[in-house]
Amino acid sequence: MSDVGEIDLADPRAVRRAIRQGSFRDFTNHVAPGYVQGNLVILPRAYAEDFETYCRANAQALPILGRSEPGSPHIPALAEDLDLRTDVGEYMVFRDGEHVATPDGIGDLWRDDLVAFVLGCSFSFEAMLLAHGVRLRHLDEGNVSAMYVTDIDTVPVGPFAGKLVVSMRALTPSDAISATIISDRYPQYHGRPVSIGLPSAIGITDLAASYGGHGLTRLEAGEIPVFWACGATGQIAARAARLPLCITHHKAHMVITDLPVVPAHG
Amino acid sequence: MSDVGEIDLADPRAVRRAIRQGSFRDFTNHVAPGYVQGNLVILPRAYAEDFETYCRANAQALPILGRSEPGSPHIPALAEDLDLRTDVGEYMVFRDGEHVATPDGIGDLWRDDLVAFVLGCSFSFEAMLLAHGVRLRHLDEGNVSAMYVTDIDTVPVGPFAGKLVVSMRALTPSDAISATIISDRYPQYHGRPVSIGLPSAIGITDLAASYGGHGLTRLEAGEIPVFWACGATGQIAARAARLPLCITHHKAHMVITDLPVVPAHG
Repeated sequence: MSDVGEIDLADPRAVRRAIRQGSFRDFTNHVAPGYVQGNLVILPRAYAEDFETYCRANAQALPILGRSEPGSPHIPALAEDLDLRTDVGEYMVFRDGEHVATPDGIGDLWRDDLVAFVLGCSFSFEAMLLAHGVRLRHLDEGNVSAMYVTDIDTVPVGPFAGKLVVSMRALTPSDAISATIISDRYPQYHGRPVSIGLPSAIGITDLAASYGGHGLTRLEAGEIPVFWACGATGQIAARAARLPLCITHHKAHMVITDLPVVPAHG
Repeated sequence: MSDVGEIDLADPRAVRRAIRQGSFRDFTNHVAPGYVQGNLVILPRAYAEDFETYCRANAQALPILGRSEPGSPHIPALAEDLDLRTDVGEYMVFRDGEHVATPDGIGDLWRDDLVAFVLGCSFSFEAMLLAHGVRLRHLDEGNVSAMYVTDIDTVPVGPFAGKLVVSMRALTPSDAISATIISDRYPQYHGRPVSIGLPSAIGITDLAASYGGHGLTRLEAGEIPVFWACGATGQIAARAARLPLCITHHKAHMVITDLPVVPAHG
């Protein structure tokens, strides 16, 4: 069991507490394996119905794991103690679509009309891939999966629209086959890949130019790129909608839940 | 329902009868969709136990669908009327490993000590891929899937050894993902692919140089190659064993059974 100082990094509740107290600020892709992690999108109640419909219309990218009651920063179904004002390591604050801050807490921004959405994240199935012997080189190298904005349009709803964002993992062909089959069992965290092998087929012209500028952006010999739908699709759409206020997690600082990762089938 | 003259090409019994009577001599990949087709390997009883063990040790390539009693050219479990001396369109005859003839019947070669094996073939799941919307360009072009000898060693048993043979289909990335997931449900006909995207990863240096010289051997823009284990692996191993007599089907002239194609799971 891994730990940093006093933090039991295998325990989702312990990691949330450490984030809340400021003692854990790292990416979350290597902690609490076997527990579901999610993307965070917080917006005013006036836009919540359209956003939920947008998520349901683009469910491979934006599977809804939970939605808070208006004004509540809690979603007890995801974790009893979860406080979405403090339990994410870094947030992004957007006003009228402009990124204005990257705070480590949003208690001072919270309002009675805010609604929080937690959306599925592929970090959730990475532990399952490892358990099946798939090598995730980006984890070995202390990195996170790279993201790219594709040329695939999402289904627009109300003010929400935009391109599909994908996460990429560089895999051997046989690991790519295993990962395709395994991830298909987890539709609540994006399921099967959306593309494989040919970045140009989805409008990616340069693997080095990732969205957010992180992740493995070069293939080694014997690797092919495998692309999964990514919850960052929701961040792009919310930003493009130029809402007066929108708050999201900052890259790879996800919401950690107490839900075990379980397959939907197979 | 397709037919050529009087032959109902959707009916496996009708196709067998037409082959037996000499009125059907085409490749079998486009007939009797939804029914299992198989590779044929016939060899003397003295080698049958080792060959069965070899097949079981390399089951992804050589899943055993049926085995005849010594001296019997029938396997009623596959089709009541099946006669393996006449019901394959073209045979290959090997003596001491040398290819000596390609007859359209083997009644004159049959002996009381011969044992026939019918081994799974990926033609069986092609109809399932089509049903799920996967485009198989080689079928549109009246072709069969290309085969290649890889650099992957099979598990040797007795005199039987050799490299894994694969069949290749040229697919779009999204069809490659679907085909990977669908074929995984059919382990009795090779199951999931063995490789994808990078021919060099399995020792294929030139897609134009296919085993048997047929199939689509060039990719179009937007396609990636997907490789499945192939029953021709058994033909190569039986030939390399230099048995005094060995008889197989000739490429793409498969044994057509009355068994419906059914998934093993999912």
